[in-house]
Amino acid sequence: MAAQMKVIIIEPKTFDDAQQVANNLRERKPVVINFEHTDAEAAKRIIDFISGTTYALNGEIKKVGHNVFLCAPSNVNVTYTEEERKVSAEMPWLKK
Amino acid sequence: MAAQMKVIIIEPKTFDDAQQVANNLRERKPVVINFEHTDAEAAKRIIDFISGTTYALNGEIKKVGHNVFLCAPSNVNVTYTEEERKVSAEMPWLKK
Repeated sequence: MAAQMKVIIIEPKTFDDAQQVANNLRERKPVVINFEHTDAEAAKRIIDFISGTTYALNGEIKKVGHNVFLCAPSNVNVTYTEEERKVSAEMPWLKK
Repeated sequence: MAAQMKVIIIEPKTFDDAQQVANNLRERKPVVINFEHTDAEAAKRIIDFISGTTYALNGEIKKVGHNVFLCAPSNVNVTYTEEERKVSAEMPWLKK
């Protein structure tokens, strides 16, 4: 049986919440960050802090929606399955 | 060392893409669904289909942002860390 895995969802309020995201990444847990209710200035600083964290931990940050990001530690592989849409946006002549 | 884990990100275009979400859930992989570019009617049907899938597999669906959902199979535990905000929205007299 596969081991139990954890995904954390965080809606940061202030820059201080960045630490909570970083702690979960250090524990090798993926984190979904929802900035919909975050002050724009704080969101920008959190993104910078978490970019530093994921860089240090060899992880990655992916935008998964408007104001929603997925931060993945190095043990988590993130796969986009809808490459077609992006290709068709860049190369409309390939559009079905 | 922890096993490599996968998180799938899908931006569905049509109802048929629901099957792709379901296949990943059956393979015990969490899926982030971004409905920002999905027709509203198709999104509704996909949500219903995936609700059926997660119910069958004892998993869960969580809204993680406007038009963004996280679908987790039963081996994935989803944790919200920001309960305070919800409480303060419902009970504003508790607000800091």
